[in-house]
Amino acid sequence: MDIWFKNATIVTMNPIAPILYETDLGIIDGKITFACEGSKPKRVINCTHKVLMPGLFNCHSHAAMTLFRGYANDRALEDWLFNHLFPAESRLTPELVRLGTLVAMAEMISSGTVAFSDMYCHMDIVAQAADEVGMLANICNGVIGMDKENFDYYNCNEYLQTVRALEAGYDKKDGRIKIEASIHGVYTSYKPTWEKAVDFAKKNNMRMHVHLSETKTEHEGCIKNYGVTPAQVFEKHGVFDVPCLAAHGVWASDDDIEIFREKGVTVAHNPLSNLKLASGLAPVAKMLERGVNVALGTDGVSSNNSHDLFEEMKMASLLQKYITNDPTTLPATETLKMATVNGAKAQGRENESGMLAEGFDADMLVLDFDNPRQTMCYDPTLNLAYSTSGRDVQMTVCRGKILYEKGEYKTIDIEKILWDTRAARRIFL
Amino acid sequence: MDIWFKNATIVTMNPIAPILYETDLGIIDGKITFACEGSKPKRVINCTHKVLMPGLFNCHSHAAMTLFRGYANDRALEDWLFNHLFPAESRLTPELVRLGTLVAMAEMISSGTVAFSDMYCHMDIVAQAADEVGMLANICNGVIGMDKENFDYYNCNEYLQTVRALEAGYDKKDGRIKIEASIHGVYTSYKPTWEKAVDFAKKNNMRMHVHLSETKTEHEGCIKNYGVTPAQVFEKHGVFDVPCLAAHGVWASDDDIEIFREKGVTVAHNPLSNLKLASGLAPVAKMLERGVNVALGTDGVSSNNSHDLFEEMKMASLLQKYITNDPTTLPATETLKMATVNGAKAQGRENESGMLAEGFDADMLVLDFDNPRQTMCYDPTLNLAYSTSGRDVQMTVCRGKILYEKGEYKTIDIEKILWDTRAARRIFL
Repeated sequence: MDIWFKNATIVTMNPIAPILYETDLGIIDGKITFACEGSKPKRVINCTHKVLMPGLFNCHSHAAMTLFRGYANDRALEDWLFNHLFPAESRLTPELVRLGTLVAMAEMISSGTVAFSDMYCHMDIVAQAADEVGMLANICNGVIGMDKENFDYYNCNEYLQTVRALEAGYDKKDGRIKIEASIHGVYTSYKPTWEKAVDFAKKNNMRMHVHLSETKTEHEGCIKNYGVTPAQVFEKHGVFDVPCLAAHGVWASDDDIEIFREKGVTVAHNPLSNLKLASGLAPVAKMLERGVNVALGTDGVSSNNSHDLFEEMKMASLLQKYITNDPTTLPATETLKMATVNGAKAQGRENESGMLAEGFDADMLVLDFDNPRQTMCYDPTLNLAYSTSGRDVQMTVCRGKILYEKGEYKTIDIEKILWDTRAARRIFL
Repeated sequence: MDIWFKNATIVTMNPIAPILYETDLGIIDGKITFACEGSKPKRVINCTHKVLMPGLFNCHSHAAMTLFRGYANDRALEDWLFNHLFPAESRLTPELVRLGTLVAMAEMISSGTVAFSDMYCHMDIVAQAADEVGMLANICNGVIGMDKENFDYYNCNEYLQTVRALEAGYDKKDGRIKIEASIHGVYTSYKPTWEKAVDFAKKNNMRMHVHLSETKTEHEGCIKNYGVTPAQVFEKHGVFDVPCLAAHGVWASDDDIEIFREKGVTVAHNPLSNLKLASGLAPVAKMLERGVNVALGTDGVSSNNSHDLFEEMKMASLLQKYITNDPTTLPATETLKMATVNGAKAQGRENESGMLAEGFDADMLVLDFDNPRQTMCYDPTLNLAYSTSGRDVQMTVCRGKILYEKGEYKTIDIEKILWDTRAARRIFL
């Protein structure tokens, strides 16, 4: 046995036994076991006043955008995008994307995230970085194709980078890294791009990651151009015939929600980014009620500006209570499920991660509850949903490997990457 | 000189010089000075990659409700209040209120709060605890008076406790503790109570703290009973003729907002509690635009469930962007102002605290910016508003005295109070 966690409170997220008190949990060869007695562990951790829970899934990120944290914020969307963000992004290099992604991963693992679904550029580099750090990562280049008639494969950087990531073989290793197909959005591409993306995904047995109905402008523009919503356009062109993760869904209609349910589309809800950009608020309580798999994401931290999924969980719940005018909406367990079980499903990892169950991968957190923020605690589920932040994360474990413990990053040279990232600041000024 | 902070980035909140880079700040006899050269400090702190800012003001709390953190949450309001919370509160003793308040203060100082405006019971005990810990505290007993014809002074615990707190002389010491008058709310009292409270406040030169228009039921019930809104009832009965802090104002009308402006009433905005109880969302962007002083509060953590004001700041801003459909609403500086300058004004401390200015009290924070959460940083104001949480607080100083530093509580026996508080849990089961 590698680690024996003794006498813990365990929020398993396993519906068979959701909360276990004064229970031992062990890690053997990267897997979870509850049969600890008699084993000889390399390390024993006393878990009095500690809570164990599954590691969190951030199902929509643009990790390298840590480079643009707080970059020209508090501006109108068009001004921010066209006068600031896009010109800055044009200066990105593979090395900068690598740096920004490493900063993001450091932030994620230090606040309890073990897995992320990332859409950005130079994703072959991102795959490499995630492989080194030891996180789970589903990675895609958001494909843009503004030619209405054709899709020019050899002039599409996003495709070429995706192919390069595939050829590098990261997704063939141990399943930690998965390369995904992607369409950036219905408003940044046309039919040839969509159909090519679906073909590509099917041929390579890939999942798909898209943006969908993030803003009212996008949603209504699509209805104006195609007579139907973005979800209906994508459904018609087969995008949902592969396992699909759709970010946002802020303006999704009741019919769209029915499509998500029927086609098994996961919606990645990004409440903080949606509020910050004044995009709106997705009807996720309704989606969940109708059986849609809803996961959580932070989106890029230039529009958040944090990767702390505990914050996202809390606000997701509070916001749904607010818009449904009902404090019983999205109770704690449902909220935690979005960031764990539903996230694992969104990444195709539901049989190995997202809950603390016998034989599952040891993707898990140790949380400190011996502090004023967690006192009183009547029900650890409630405290996790409403009183916990990344600050309470003492240890983050992925596939049995400790990535972060009490301020120490085990797989990242944190001083170097912070130094190098700060040095890159002048590039964007 | 007591402490010399060298080479800091300083977000002063002083409009004359809002951000200072590579600047030194000193504390002499509890006061701030920028004239450091030549002095002989007892301690020097290298502030490279650290940010200094004023300590935060939590302008509406029920601190001892840490005892009820996560207590029977996710329930309908009536069920929660009448079947769970009120019966539990009936078991409160002075010693329990003391414990709960100490836990709250530990949570507050460890996340950057130096001052709180508290309304609860046994406030003589709360005054004593705040005095010991070294925070700034404006303290009141929320007076309830259900007799329509009379106010029976000698049978009103809230009054008697207030008088006891006054007699104990805490507010006569050094101004750190102020005892305030209070009316719990327009729906829990009548004319004799209101008029008595105003008399009492005037006679004793006290400020006033009330609840106001928190829920639609309360607001519309008042209109039904009195023909006017709670703000208009209070105005009519002179409640706003003393300096008044009104918590919530969720349902405040345009006319109410005009009254707040004219009468100098501070609105304490508690966005997380208001969302969590599905009470609604106060139009604070509009209030600020019309010149109302708006401060921030956490409310009791049973309906939050945290005392981290950085979280409250971020969400206050994001929520106003959302409801005004404009990402430029409540920009970072305005948000920070609510938790500092406006909070100091709400407590009658605007000439001594709330900004880092020469001669002001050294009520201030040292924040760690040498971590992934704060990388990149283009403008510390933006990072403070959107990327910072209590986790980044390295040091909390009140009147020149260090209350908290890197996990250590200098004025609270943290192990003892957490132990004793957890032991009290069974009382409420």
